[in-house]
Amino acid sequence: MSTITPPANPEADPRVKAVFDDIRATRKSDFINNMWLWLAFDPDLLEQTWRDVKTVMATPSALDPLVKEMLYIAVSVSNGCGYCAHSHTAAARAKGMTDAEHADLLRVISLAARTNQLATALQVPVDAAFDRTS
Amino acid sequence: MSTITPPANPEADPRVKAVFDDIRATRKSDFINNMWLWLAFDPDLLEQTWRDVKTVMATPSALDPLVKEMLYIAVSVSNGCGYCAHSHTAAARAKGMTDAEHADLLRVISLAARTNQLATALQVPVDAAFDRTS
Amino acid sequence: MSTITPPANPEADPRVKAVFDDIRATRKSDFINNMWLWLAFDPDLLEQTWRDVKTVMATPSALDPLVKEMLYIAVSVSNGCGYCAHSHTAAARAKGMTDAEHADLLRVISLAARTNQLATALQVPVDAAFDRTS
Amino acid sequence: MSTITPPANPEADPRVKAVFDDIRATRKSDFINNMWLWLAFDPDLLEQTWRDVKTVMATPSALDPLVKEMLYIAVSVSNGCGYCAHSHTAAARAKGMTDAEHADLLRVISLAARTNQLATALQVPVDAAFDRTS
Amino acid sequence: MSTITPPANPEADPRVKAVFDDIRATRKSDFINNMWLWLAFDPDLLEQTWRDVKTVMATPSALDPLVKEMLYIAVSVSNGCGYCAHSHTAAARAKGMTDAEHADLLRVISLAARTNQLATALQVPVDAAFDRTS
Amino acid sequence: MSTITPPANPEADPRVKAVFDDIRATRKSDFINNMWLWLAFDPDLLEQTWRDVKTVMATPSALDPLVKEMLYIAVSVSNGCGYCAHSHTAAARAKGMTDAEHADLLRVISLAARTNQLATALQVPVDAAFDRTS
Repeated sequence: MSTITPPANPEADPRVKAVFDDIRATRKSDFINNMWLWLAFDPDLLEQTWRDVKTVMATPSALDPLVKEMLYIAVSVSNGCGYCAHSHTAAARAKGMTDAEHADLLRVISLAARTNQLATALQVPVDAAFDRTS
Repeated sequence: MSTITPPANPEADPRVKAVFDDIRATRKSDFINNMWLWLAFDPDLLEQTWRDVKTVMATPSALDPLVKEMLYIAVSVSNGCGYCAHSHTAAARAKGMTDAEHADLLRVISLAARTNQLATALQVPVDAAFDRTS
Repeated sequence: MSTITPPANPEADPRVKAVFDDIRATRKSDFINNMWLWLAFDPDLLEQTWRDVKTVMATPSALDPLVKEMLYIAVSVSNGCGYCAHSHTAAARAKGMTDAEHADLLRVISLAARTNQLATALQVPVDAAFDRTS
Repeated sequence: MSTITPPANPEADPRVKAVFDDIRATRKSDFINNMWLWLAFDPDLLEQTWRDVKTVMATPSALDPLVKEMLYIAVSVSNGCGYCAHSHTAAARAKGMTDAEHADLLRVISLAARTNQLATALQVPVDAAFDRTS
Repeated sequence: MSTITPPANPEADPRVKAVFDDIRATRKSDFINNMWLWLAFDPDLLEQTWRDVKTVMATPSALDPLVKEMLYIAVSVSNGCGYCAHSHTAAARAKGMTDAEHADLLRVISLAARTNQLATALQVPVDAAFDRTS
Repeated sequence: MSTITPPANPEADPRVKAVFDDIRATRKSDFINNMWLWLAFDPDLLEQTWRDVKTVMATPSALDPLVKEMLYIAVSVSNGCGYCAHSHTAAARAKGMTDAEHADLLRVISLAARTNQLATALQVPVDAAFDRTS
């Protein structure tokens, strides 16, 4: 059940085909997951989304690729996005996440959610020592 | 402005003093941030929270301590917890997070929030390839 | 799978029947979607919820009906409510939302989620120019 | 700092005065908190909001008034609403919430946030035993 | 569809068996719901989570057990956790929650979400009267 | 109080200056709000964020500019982002949002949050009629 109809033959559109080809080349895999098939209903949105994902996730940067996937999982779970939890856990696995790392990730994000509630419930004032403004 | 009155002299309670002493010893610092001063209004809640934080964040585990702080930031920001964003950014800095890593962290968590919205709005069905149940 | 048992024959209750009749008359359609069938487990909650929805969504007001449906989608997606994303996307379609408007809606709400994360992560202070208090 | 200008003399508007009088009578107090002063910028929104709050929170119902305030706190904290955490903690205090009950409330809502993260991260399938549909 | 593979024979691990035995003894039931079967993929995470749930939810404390379940539902729904909404509604039912209490719970948590939006949208300043700091 | 130190003289960096010049030209105003001053701590993140905001919000598209600002407010409020609620309410005002439209916006987003809670709490199954997949 979805809120849009994904195109039956998305690669008939050359803009979609170009994005899909780049996804396959970047990931060195023929698999195009549903997120991209669905976004293909609007080639402009597809291009913009893929460009962002490629820039941030598939380009070498300060953080390790696996760390970036785990951060992605942390946000996706906090936002309750089931699709994203699935796709980025699979991506983290593909980048080598072990069971022990997965369990550790779960420990940290569930602890964070717990103490977030406490700080918000108590409305704890921010310590001056944490301010970096000046 | 807070929803509770933190105790004026928290270490007069020996259970609070024991937790604060352990915080200082674990962190090798005399600084006790407001979160703990506020939680001291209920020694049992203070003990339980510190035990959890110490177990997950201050005990060697599968993930690197800095990675764990960055995951903590990701969840705290997603939950809109200002205090937590401040305290865990300070903690990540103390563990060596550079400006470049901080900016990269922001890129990943803001991208994740963006694509979370897209997947939820489209109600994209989970790919069978992502299922690990069987 | 649901957390309650919807009544087998909801319109046997005259209060439920009155609400359902008003839904059909207001929407000029015989279709009663599941939300209302489920809420019928408590006629009081059903009446109150329908009264609110009718007042806000089905009464001419400052904003255009389609704009109101798109705002509803924005909130529903942000809250991760799959049912609501489905029902209000269908409602927006019924009120004329085009594919291009749908894609534009997705662009805006996903961008907003992205910059929300940045502002919260940086804890950017509010500009005095934005204050309307005085 | 606010996003609207609250009216300088709200009770000059008879609809606002009627709501404020009812708030004072219902609560047996002369204090009108900022939420209502701000909502007075639109008398219709003020009336509708107060009617809802009075119906749900100030009318005898299946749940105890203090329990309802604690549920309100739980939702407000989960949504990161600082104003609401403050106002409903004050209301719960006024209805007799003790320090021990407050701490217990914090224990439950912070635990719930923790296990919510785990269930979402693992995408645990719902047990058939929990389904009440049939 | 899940992000991990639950162990085929979890009680072959003595740490898992000990937790499951304690769940059965504490709940006086042979039923182990999926949450625990899934968490068994990491015995340490299982032990820690069960210890927390048992301490907070299954130990006599300031709040009534049914009230605690309803608070758990309030947080779970706010976080969009479908599994948790199911499991804790079932638990509240098992502890005696009536249809009338369930409907009242829904009235309160949905009202809270509504006024949370208003307070946040208006950025209402916190009343000095609500501050308990000093 | 912020989690970073915004640069003292941001336009000394030519990449920052180019973005700020484009913000001023696009908005036909000399005012640079804090969000951009803070993002200037990382010129790459600044450029990427401004490019996205300009593309989506300052380029003619299917939706009206004021509607897009109101959608931005809806998401920002749902995410509890105070800065964003302020900045986008100001932007909507600058684009002509009236008090009546503002109040209507608040009615819709607060109603949506209310019914989101109900649908999630009840775990209402999606009607087949809403599915657009096939």
